[in-house]
Amino acid sequence: MSWNDKNDNKNGLDERGFTLSLEGRSVPGVYWTPSDGASERLVLLGHGGTTHKKVDYIEQMAAMLAARGISCMAIDGPGHGERATRDITQHPDAFAEVWDEGGGTPAMLADWRAALDFIEQQEGVRPTGWWGLSMGTMMGLPVTATDERIRVALLGLMGTWGPNADDLIRLAPEVSCPVRFLMQWDDEIVPRDTCIELFGTLGSKKKTLHANPGAHQAVPQFEIRGSVDYLDKYLR
Amino acid sequence: MSWNDKNDNKNGLDERGFTLSLEGRSVPGVYWTPSDGASERLVLLGHGGTTHKKVDYIEQMAAMLAARGISCMAIDGPGHGERATRDITQHPDAFAEVWDEGGGTPAMLADWRAALDFIEQQEGVRPTGWWGLSMGTMMGLPVTATDERIRVALLGLMGTWGPNADDLIRLAPEVSCPVRFLMQWDDEIVPRDTCIELFGTLGSKKKTLHANPGAHQAVPQFEIRGSVDYLDKYLR
Repeated sequence: MSWNDKNDNKNGLDERGFTLSLEGRSVPGVYWTPSDGASERLVLLGHGGTTHKKVDYIEQMAAMLAARGISCMAIDGPGHGERATRDITQHPDAFAEVWDEGGGTPAMLADWRAALDFIEQQEGVRPTGWWGLSMGTMMGLPVTATDERIRVALLGLMGTWGPNADDLIRLAPEVSCPVRFLMQWDDEIVPRDTCIELFGTLGSKKKTLHANPGAHQAVPQFEIRGSVDYLDKYLR
Repeated sequence: MSWNDKNDNKNGLDERGFTLSLEGRSVPGVYWTPSDGASERLVLLGHGGTTHKKVDYIEQMAAMLAARGISCMAIDGPGHGERATRDITQHPDAFAEVWDEGGGTPAMLADWRAALDFIEQQEGVRPTGWWGLSMGTMMGLPVTATDERIRVALLGLMGTWGPNADDLIRLAPEVSCPVRFLMQWDDEIVPRDTCIELFGTLGSKKKTLHANPGAHQAVPQFEIRGSVDYLDKYLR
Protein backbone atom coordinates (compact mmCIF):
# COMPACT_ATOMS: atom_id res chain seq x y z
CA MET A 1 0.00 0.00 0.00
CA SER A 2 1.67 3.24 -1.03
CA TRP A 3 1.14 6.69 -2.44
CA ASN A 4 2.33 7.28 -5.96
CA ASP A 5 4.92 9.95 -6.60
CA LYS A 6 2.85 12.29 -8.73
CA ASN A 7 0.43 14.80 -7.22
CA ASP A 8 -1.96 17.06 -9.10
CA ASN A 9 -3.89 20.16 -8.19
CA LYS A 10 -6.93 21.23 -10.16
CA ASN A 11 -10.56 22.22 -9.66
CA GLY A 12 -9.82 23.39 -6.13
CA LEU A 13 -8.63 20.04 -4.90
CA ASP A 14 -5.39 18.14 -4.45
CA GLU A 15 -5.21 14.73 -6.09
CA ARG A 16 -2.93 11.89 -5.05
CA GLY A 17 -2.72 8.42 -6.55
CA PHE A 18 -2.11 5.27 -4.54
CA THR A 19 -1.71 1.59 -5.23
CA LEU A 20 -2.99 -1.33 -3.17
CA SER A 21 -1.44 -4.78 -3.33
CA LEU A 22 -3.61 -7.59 -2.07
CA GLU A 23 -4.26 -11.24 -2.86
CA GLY A 24 -1.89 -11.13 -5.78
CA ARG A 25 -3.54 -8.19 -7.53
CA SER A 26 -2.71 -4.53 -7.80
CA VAL A 27 -5.53 -2.01 -7.34
CA PRO A 28 -4.97 1.64 -8.28
CA GLY A 29 -6.79 4.37 -6.39
CA VAL A 30 -7.02 8.12 -6.13
CA TYR A 31 -7.59 10.43 -3.17
CA TRP A 32 -8.81 14.02 -3.39
CA THR A 33 -8.67 16.66 -0.64
CA PRO A 34 -9.84 20.29 -0.66
CA SER A 35 -6.84 22.45 -1.57
CA ASP A 36 -7.55 24.92 1.19
CA GLY A 37 -6.95 22.63 4.12
CA ALA A 38 -7.87 19.64 6.20
CA SER A 39 -11.03 17.68 5.65
CA GLU A 40 -13.06 16.11 8.45
CA ARG A 41 -15.33 13.99 6.24
CA LEU A 42 -14.85 11.40 3.48
CA VAL A 43 -16.91 10.04 0.57
CA LEU A 44 -16.06 6.92 -1.43
CA LEU A 45 -16.89 7.34 -5.13
CA GLY A 46 -17.89 4.26 -7.12
CA HIS A 47 -17.60 4.62 -10.90
CA GLY A 48 -20.04 3.12 -13.42
CA GLY A 49 -19.58 0.23 -15.81
CA THR A 50 -17.10 0.71 -18.71
CA THR A 51 -15.64 3.82 -16.99
CA HIS A 52 -12.95 4.28 -14.34
CA LYS A 53 -11.93 6.01 -11.08
CA LYS A 54 -11.21 9.35 -12.76
CA VAL A 55 -13.99 9.53 -15.34
CA ASP A 56 -15.38 13.04 -15.80
CA TYR A 57 -18.44 12.74 -13.55
CA ILE A 58 -16.39 11.19 -10.73
CA GLU A 59 -13.99 14.14 -10.90
CA GLN A 60 -17.01 16.46 -10.95
CA MET A 61 -18.37 14.82 -7.78
CA ALA A 62 -14.96 15.10 -6.09
CA ALA A 63 -14.83 18.81 -6.93
CA MET A 64 -18.38 19.47 -5.70
CA LEU A 65 -17.77 17.57 -2.47
CA ALA A 66 -14.39 19.28 -1.94
CA ALA A 67 -16.24 22.60 -2.12
CA ARG A 68 -18.13 21.39 0.99
CA GLY A 69 -14.88 20.46 2.71
CA ILE A 70 -15.24 16.74 2.02
CA SER A 71 -12.40 14.49 0.81
CA CYS A 72 -13.05 11.69 -1.68
CA MET A 73 -11.50 8.38 -2.60
CA ALA A 74 -12.01 6.12 -5.62
CA ILE A 75 -10.49 2.91 -6.96
CA ASP A 76 -10.80 1.12 -10.27
CA GLY A 77 -13.42 -1.64 -10.09
CA PRO A 78 -12.87 -5.22 -11.27
CA GLY A 79 -11.63 -5.23 -14.89
CA HIS A 80 -11.99 -1.46 -15.23
CA GLY A 81 -9.63 1.49 -15.73
CA GLU A 82 -6.00 0.56 -15.22
CA ARG A 83 -7.16 -2.98 -14.35
CA ALA A 84 -8.79 -3.52 -17.76
CA THR A 85 -7.58 -6.45 -19.83
CA ARG A 86 -9.73 -5.54 -22.81
CA ASP A 87 -11.70 -2.56 -24.09
CA ILE A 88 -15.22 -3.23 -22.85
CA THR A 89 -16.47 0.09 -24.20
CA GLN A 90 -16.32 -1.71 -27.53
CA HIS A 91 -17.70 -4.95 -26.10
CA PRO A 92 -20.35 -4.10 -23.48
CA ASP A 93 -21.56 -7.70 -23.59
CA ALA A 94 -18.28 -8.63 -21.90
CA PHE A 95 -19.22 -6.63 -18.79
CA ALA A 96 -20.33 -9.67 -16.78
CA GLU A 97 -17.23 -11.63 -17.78
CA VAL A 98 -14.93 -8.78 -16.78
CA TRP A 99 -16.69 -8.42 -13.41
CA ASP A 100 -16.23 -12.11 -12.71
CA GLU A 101 -12.64 -12.23 -13.97
CA GLY A 102 -11.85 -9.35 -11.61
CA GLY A 103 -12.98 -11.51 -8.71
CA GLY A 104 -16.63 -10.48 -8.49
CA THR A 105 -18.23 -9.21 -5.31
CA PRO A 106 -15.85 -10.86 -2.77
CA ALA A 107 -12.68 -9.41 -4.32
CA MET A 108 -14.39 -6.06 -4.88
CA LEU A 109 -15.32 -5.91 -1.19
CA ALA A 110 -11.74 -6.75 -0.18
CA ASP A 111 -10.43 -4.01 -2.50
CA TRP A 112 -12.65 -1.28 -1.07
CA ARG A 113 -12.01 -2.36 2.53
CA ALA A 114 -8.26 -2.27 1.93
CA ALA A 115 -8.52 1.11 0.28
CA LEU A 116 -10.52 2.60 3.16
CA ASP A 117 -8.14 1.01 5.68
CA PHE A 118 -5.21 2.66 3.87
CA ILE A 119 -6.84 6.09 3.75
CA GLU A 120 -7.82 5.89 7.43
CA GLN A 121 -4.28 4.87 8.39
CA GLN A 122 -2.84 7.76 6.41
CA GLU A 123 -5.42 10.48 6.98
CA GLY A 124 -7.33 9.49 10.09
CA VAL A 125 -10.82 8.13 10.79
CA ARG A 126 -13.67 10.39 9.67
CA PRO A 127 -17.42 10.23 9.04
CA THR A 128 -17.64 8.37 5.73
CA GLY A 129 -20.27 8.02 3.02
CA TRP A 130 -20.70 6.34 -0.36
CA TRP A 131 -21.70 7.77 -3.73
CA GLY A 132 -22.07 5.49 -6.75
CA LEU A 133 -24.59 4.74 -9.50
CA SER A 134 -25.02 1.70 -11.74
CA MET A 135 -21.81 -0.36 -11.30
CA GLY A 136 -21.14 2.19 -8.55
CA THR A 137 -24.09 0.57 -6.76
CA MET A 138 -23.04 -2.97 -7.69
CA MET A 139 -19.98 -2.06 -5.61
CA GLY A 140 -21.53 0.38 -3.14
CA LEU A 141 -24.50 -1.62 -1.95
CA PRO A 142 -22.34 -4.57 -0.80
CA VAL A 143 -19.75 -2.18 0.68
CA THR A 144 -22.44 -0.25 2.56
CA ALA A 145 -24.06 -3.47 3.79
CA THR A 146 -20.82 -4.98 5.11
CA ASP A 147 -18.63 -2.07 6.22
CA GLU A 148 -20.09 -0.34 9.26
CA ARG A 149 -17.92 2.69 8.59
CA ILE A 150 -20.28 3.78 5.80
CA ARG A 151 -22.97 5.87 7.49
CA VAL A 152 -24.87 7.22 4.47
CA ALA A 153 -25.12 6.14 0.82
CA LEU A 154 -26.22 7.60 -2.49
CA LEU A 155 -27.10 4.62 -4.69
CA GLY A 156 -29.11 3.94 -7.83
CA LEU A 157 -29.35 3.03 -11.53
CA MET A 158 -29.22 -0.60 -10.48
CA GLY A 159 -31.72 -3.31 -9.69
CA THR A 160 -32.12 -6.95 -8.79
CA TRP A 161 -30.25 -7.46 -12.01
CA GLY A 162 -26.81 -7.94 -13.53
CA PRO A 163 -23.67 -9.91 -12.77
CA ASN A 164 -23.99 -9.68 -8.98
CA ALA A 165 -27.80 -9.61 -8.69
CA ASP A 166 -27.70 -12.46 -6.17
CA ASP A 167 -25.30 -10.52 -3.95
CA LEU A 168 -27.43 -7.38 -4.18
CA ILE A 169 -30.60 -9.28 -3.29
CA ARG A 170 -28.85 -10.99 -0.37
CA LEU A 171 -27.18 -7.85 0.99
CA ALA A 172 -29.83 -5.15 0.42
CA PRO A 173 -31.72 -6.05 3.63
CA GLU A 174 -28.41 -5.67 5.53
CA VAL A 175 -28.08 -2.01 4.58
CA SER A 176 -29.16 0.02 7.58
CA CYS A 177 -27.83 3.56 7.07
CA PRO A 178 -29.78 6.37 5.36
CA VAL A 179 -29.93 5.85 1.58
CA ARG A 180 -31.06 8.01 -1.29
CA PHE A 181 -31.69 5.85 -4.35
CA LEU A 182 -31.87 7.35 -7.86
CA MET A 183 -33.55 5.67 -10.80
CA GLN A 184 -34.31 6.64 -14.37
CA TRP A 185 -37.86 5.85 -15.48
CA ASP A 186 -36.84 5.04 -19.05
CA ASP A 187 -33.66 3.14 -18.17
CA GLU A 188 -32.77 1.11 -21.25
CA ILE A 189 -30.14 -0.97 -19.44
CA VAL A 190 -31.47 -1.83 -15.99
CA PRO A 191 -35.18 -2.79 -16.09
CA ARG A 192 -37.42 -0.37 -14.19
CA ASP A 193 -39.13 -3.05 -12.10
CA THR A 194 -35.80 -4.43 -10.87
CA CYS A 195 -34.74 -0.97 -9.65
CA ILE A 196 -38.02 -0.55 -7.78
CA GLU A 197 -37.61 -4.03 -6.28
CA LEU A 198 -34.04 -3.37 -5.14
CA PHE A 199 -35.05 -0.11 -3.45
CA GLY A 200 -37.90 -1.95 -1.75
CA THR A 201 -35.61 -4.57 -0.22
CA LEU A 202 -33.09 -2.10 1.28
CA GLY A 203 -33.16 -2.56 5.03
CA SER A 204 -32.72 1.13 5.90
CA LYS A 205 -35.45 2.81 7.89
CA LYS A 206 -34.52 6.09 6.25
CA LYS A 207 -34.49 5.62 2.49
CA THR A 208 -35.88 7.72 -0.33
CA LEU A 209 -36.39 6.80 -3.96
CA HIS A 210 -36.04 9.58 -6.56
CA ALA A 211 -37.26 8.64 -10.05
CA ASN A 212 -37.01 10.89 -13.11
CA PRO A 213 -37.81 10.42 -16.80
CA GLY A 214 -34.99 9.62 -19.18
CA ALA A 215 -32.39 7.05 -20.11
CA HIS A 216 -29.77 5.37 -17.91
CA GLN A 217 -27.15 8.05 -18.34
CA ALA A 218 -29.55 11.03 -18.32
CA VAL A 219 -29.73 11.62 -14.56
CA PRO A 220 -30.79 15.29 -14.19
CA GLN A 221 -28.14 17.67 -12.93
CA PHE A 222 -30.46 18.76 -10.10
CA GLU A 223 -30.28 15.19 -8.75
CA ILE A 224 -26.47 15.25 -8.96
CA ARG A 225 -26.35 18.54 -7.08
CA GLY A 226 -28.98 17.21 -4.68
CA SER A 227 -26.85 14.14 -3.99
CA VAL A 228 -24.05 16.43 -2.81
CA ASP A 229 -26.47 18.22 -0.47
CA TYR A 230 -27.69 14.85 0.79
CA LEU A 231 -24.25 13.47 1.65
CA ASP A 232 -23.17 16.81 3.09
CA LYS A 233 -26.20 16.82 5.42
CA TYR A 234 -25.85 13.24 6.69
CA LEU A 235 -22.08 13.44 7.22
CA ARG A 236 -22.34 16.46 9.52
CA MET B 1 -69.48 34.60 -5.38
CA SER B 2 -68.69 36.71 -2.35
CA TRP B 3 -66.32 37.18 0.58
CA ASN B 4 -67.66 36.30 3.98
CA ASP B 5 -67.75 38.97 6.63
CA LYS B 6 -65.31 37.46 9.09
CA ASN B 7 -61.54 37.80 8.68
CA ASP B 8 -58.88 36.17 10.80
CA ASN B 9 -55.21 36.78 11.33
CA LYS B 10 -52.93 34.07 12.70
CA ASN B 11 -49.66 32.32 11.91
CA GLY B 12 -48.43 35.35 9.98
CA LEU B 13 -51.21 35.30 7.44
CA ASP B 14 -54.59 36.89 6.85
CA GLU B 15 -57.47 34.51 6.27
CA ARG B 16 -60.71 35.34 4.46
CA GLY B 17 -63.59 33.00 3.77
CA PHE B 18 -65.64 33.09 0.59
CA THR B 19 -68.63 31.26 -0.84
CA LEU B 20 -69.21 30.18 -4.42
CA SER B 21 -72.67 29.55 -5.82
CA LEU B 22 -72.81 27.46 -8.96
CA GLU B 23 -75.06 24.89 -10.55
CA GLY B 24 -77.37 24.95 -7.57
CA ARG B 25 -74.70 24.20 -4.98
CA SER B 26 -72.83 26.31 -2.49
CA VAL B 27 -69.07 25.79 -2.18
CA PRO B 28 -67.18 27.34 0.75
CA GLY B 29 -63.59 28.44 0.32
CA VAL B 30 -60.77 30.17 2.14
CA TYR B 31 -58.03 32.49 0.97
CA TRP B 32 -54.80 33.20 2.83
CA THR B 33 -52.36 36.06 2.19
CA PRO B 34 -49.08 36.93 3.91
CA SER B 35 -49.88 39.50 6.63
CA ASP B 36 -46.98 41.70 5.64
CA GLY B 37 -48.23 42.70 2.22
CA ALA B 38 -49.09 41.82 -1.33
CA SER B 39 -48.40 38.42 -2.82
CA GLU B 40 -47.37 37.86 -6.42
CA ARG B 41 -47.86 34.08 -6.46
CA LEU B 42 -50.69 31.66 -5.61
CA VAL B 43 -50.99 27.99 -4.62
CA LEU B 44 -54.23 26.00 -4.57
CA LEU B 45 -54.34 23.57 -1.65
CA GLY B 46 -56.31 20.34 -2.06
CA HIS B 47 -57.25 18.59 1.18
CA GLY B 48 -57.29 14.82 1.70
CA GLY B 49 -60.22 12.46 2.08
CA THR B 50 -62.34 12.76 5.27
CA THR B 51 -60.75 16.17 6.04
CA HIS B 52 -61.55 19.71 4.90
CA LYS B 53 -60.20 23.02 3.58
CA LYS B 54 -58.85 24.14 6.96
CA VAL B 55 -57.51 20.88 8.36
CA ASP B 56 -54.28 21.31 10.34
CA TYR B 57 -51.82 20.32 7.59
CA ILE B 58 -53.53 22.59 5.05
CA GLU B 59 -53.19 25.51 7.46
CA GLN B 60 -49.55 24.49 8.00
CA MET B 61 -48.91 24.56 4.23
CA ALA B 62 -50.59 27.97 3.96
CA ALA B 63 -48.36 29.32 6.75
CA MET B 64 -45.17 27.88 5.21
CA LEU B 65 -46.05 29.22 1.76
CA ALA B 66 -47.02 32.62 3.19
CA ALA B 67 -43.53 32.79 4.70
CA ARG B 68 -42.27 32.68 1.08
CA GLY B 69 -44.66 35.44 0.05
CA ILE B 70 -47.14 33.06 -1.58
CA SER B 71 -50.94 33.29 -1.16
CA CYS B 72 -53.08 30.15 -0.93
CA MET B 73 -56.65 29.16 -1.64
CA ALA B 74 -58.64 26.08 -0.66
CA ILE B 75 -62.22 24.88 -1.02
CA ASP B 76 -64.09 21.98 0.51
CA GLY B 77 -64.17 19.01 -1.85
CA PRO B 78 -67.32 17.06 -2.79
CA GLY B 79 -69.12 15.90 0.37
CA HIS B 80 -66.36 17.20 2.65
CA GLY B 81 -66.07 19.92 5.32
CA GLU B 82 -69.05 22.27 5.33
CA ARG B 83 -70.47 20.31 2.38
CA ALA B 84 -70.63 17.03 4.30
CA THR B 85 -74.02 15.38 4.61
CA ARG B 86 -72.70 12.64 6.92
CA ASP B 87 -69.66 11.96 9.08
CA ILE B 88 -67.41 9.92 6.81
CA THR B 89 -64.64 9.87 9.40
CA GLN B 90 -66.87 7.28 11.08
CA HIS B 91 -67.78 5.61 7.79
CA PRO B 92 -64.72 5.66 5.51
CA ASP B 93 -66.39 3.09 3.27
CA ALA B 94 -68.79 5.85 2.27
CA PHE B 95 -65.96 7.88 0.68
CA ALA B 96 -66.78 6.82 -2.89
CA GLU B 97 -70.49 7.47 -2.40
CA VAL B 98 -69.82 10.93 -1.00
CA TRP B 99 -67.48 11.77 -3.89
CA ASP B 100 -70.15 10.76 -6.40
CA GLU B 101 -73.00 12.47 -4.53
CA GLY B 102 -70.93 15.67 -4.57
CA GLY B 103 -70.88 15.49 -8.36
CA GLY B 104 -67.65 13.59 -8.89
CA THR B 105 -64.85 14.85 -11.12
CA PRO B 106 -66.92 17.13 -13.42
CA ALA B 107 -68.49 19.13 -10.56
CA MET B 108 -65.17 19.19 -8.68
CA LEU B 109 -63.47 20.68 -11.76
CA ALA B 110 -66.20 23.32 -12.08
CA ASP B 111 -65.82 24.19 -8.39
CA TRP B 112 -62.06 24.75 -8.56
CA ARG B 113 -62.31 26.68 -11.83
CA ALA B 114 -64.95 28.97 -10.35
CA ALA B 115 -62.86 29.43 -7.21
CA LEU B 116 -59.74 30.36 -9.17
CA ASP B 117 -61.80 32.67 -11.42
CA PHE B 118 -63.12 34.43 -8.31
CA ILE B 119 -59.69 34.84 -6.71
CA GLU B 120 -58.20 36.12 -9.97
CA GLN B 121 -61.04 38.63 -10.39
CA GLN B 122 -60.56 39.87 -6.83
CA GLU B 123 -56.78 39.66 -6.43
CA GLY B 124 -55.34 39.62 -9.93
CA VAL B 125 -53.75 36.99 -12.14
CA ARG B 126 -50.55 35.46 -10.74
CA PRO B 127 -48.28 32.45 -11.31
CA THR B 128 -50.28 29.58 -9.82
CA GLY B 129 -49.45 26.09 -8.56
CA TRP B 130 -51.19 23.14 -6.95
CA TRP B 131 -50.42 21.24 -3.75
CA GLY B 132 -52.52 18.23 -2.77
CA LEU B 133 -52.06 14.63 -1.66
CA SER B 134 -54.43 11.66 -1.71
CA MET B 135 -57.91 13.16 -2.37
CA GLY B 136 -55.89 16.35 -2.94
CA THR B 137 -54.53 14.56 -6.03
CA MET B 138 -57.93 13.11 -7.01
CA MET B 139 -58.83 16.81 -7.32
CA GLY B 140 -55.45 18.23 -8.30
CA LEU B 141 -54.50 15.95 -11.14
CA PRO B 142 -57.70 16.70 -13.12
CA VAL B 143 -57.42 20.42 -12.29
CA THR B 144 -53.77 20.52 -13.39
CA ALA B 145 -54.56 18.59 -16.58
CA THR B 146 -57.44 20.85 -17.62
CA ASP B 147 -56.63 24.33 -16.28
CA GLU B 148 -53.67 25.82 -18.10
CA ARG B 149 -53.23 28.36 -15.32
CA ILE B 150 -51.61 25.68 -13.11
CA ARG B 151 -47.91 25.76 -13.96
CA VAL B 152 -46.48 23.38 -11.33
CA ALA B 153 -48.03 20.67 -9.14
CA LEU B 154 -47.15 18.75 -6.00
CA LEU B 155 -49.18 15.53 -6.15
CA GLY B 156 -49.10 12.07 -4.61
CA LEU B 157 -50.52 9.43 -2.26
CA MET B 158 -52.85 8.43 -5.08
CA GLY B 159 -52.80 5.89 -7.88
CA THR B 160 -54.80 4.43 -10.73
CA TRP B 161 -57.26 3.67 -7.99
CA GLY B 162 -60.32 4.95 -6.17
CA PRO B 163 -63.61 6.64 -7.03
CA ASN B 164 -62.23 8.63 -9.98
CA ALA B 165 -59.53 6.21 -11.16
CA ASP B 166 -60.88 6.35 -14.71
CA ASP B 167 -60.59 10.15 -14.75
CA LEU B 168 -57.05 10.01 -13.37
CA ILE B 169 -55.98 7.43 -15.97
CA ARG B 170 -57.56 9.47 -18.76
CA LEU B 171 -56.18 12.85 -17.65
CA ALA B 172 -52.68 11.97 -16.37
CA PRO B 173 -51.18 12.04 -19.90
CA GLU B 174 -52.65 15.55 -20.31
CA VAL B 175 -50.61 16.95 -17.42
CA SER B 176 -47.69 18.83 -18.92
CA CYS B 177 -46.30 21.10 -16.21
CA PRO B 178 -43.51 20.11 -13.78
CA VAL B 179 -44.76 17.67 -11.15
CA ARG B 180 -43.27 16.28 -7.98
CA PHE B 181 -45.12 13.13 -6.93
CA LEU B 182 -44.89 11.75 -3.38
CA MET B 183 -45.68 8.18 -2.45
CA GLN B 184 -45.45 6.10 0.71
CA TRP B 185 -43.86 2.69 0.20
CA ASP B 186 -46.06 1.00 2.82
CA ASP B 187 -49.28 2.80 1.91
CA GLU B 188 -52.09 0.75 3.42
CA ILE B 189 -54.82 2.61 1.53
CA VAL B 190 -53.61 3.23 -2.03
CA PRO B 191 -51.78 0.17 -3.46
CA ARG B 192 -48.10 0.81 -4.18
CA ASP B 193 -48.23 -0.44 -7.76
CA THR B 194 -51.10 1.89 -8.63
CA CYS B 195 -49.13 4.90 -7.38
CA ILE B 196 -46.13 3.90 -9.48
CA GLU B 197 -48.40 3.41 -12.49
CA LEU B 198 -50.07 6.80 -12.10
CA PHE B 199 -46.69 8.56 -11.86
CA GLY B 200 -45.59 6.70 -14.97
CA THR B 201 -48.53 7.91 -17.05
CA LEU B 202 -48.15 11.61 -16.18
CA GLY B 203 -47.44 13.47 -19.40
CA SER B 204 -44.98 15.95 -17.91
CA LYS B 205 -41.43 15.98 -19.25
CA LYS B 206 -40.24 17.22 -15.86
CA LYS B 207 -41.58 14.93 -13.18
CA THR B 208 -39.95 13.37 -10.15
CA LEU B 209 -41.19 10.56 -7.93
CA HIS B 210 -40.20 10.65 -4.25
CA ALA B 211 -40.93 7.43 -2.34
CA ASN B 212 -40.36 6.92 1.38
CA PRO B 213 -41.11 4.10 3.81
CA GLY B 214 -44.20 4.34 5.97
CA ALA B 215 -47.97 4.41 5.95
CA HIS B 216 -50.32 6.65 3.97
CA GLN B 217 -50.37 9.46 6.48
CA ALA B 218 -46.68 9.22 7.52
CA VAL B 219 -45.17 11.46 4.83
CA PRO B 220 -41.83 12.65 6.31
CA GLN B 221 -41.68 16.28 7.35
CA PHE B 222 -38.61 16.78 5.12
CA GLU B 223 -40.82 15.99 2.12
CA ILE B 224 -43.42 18.50 3.32
CA ARG B 225 -40.76 21.20 3.71
CA GLY B 226 -39.26 20.09 0.38
CA SER B 227 -42.62 20.52 -1.32
CA VAL B 228 -42.65 24.17 -0.23
CA ASP B 229 -39.14 24.64 -1.71
CA TYR B 230 -40.30 22.95 -4.91
CA LEU B 231 -43.37 25.14 -5.46
CA ASP B 232 -41.42 28.25 -4.45
CA LYS B 233 -38.75 27.47 -7.06
CA TYR B 234 -41.10 26.75 -9.95
CA LEU B 235 -43.40 29.72 -9.31
CA ARG B 236 -40.54 32.23 -9.49
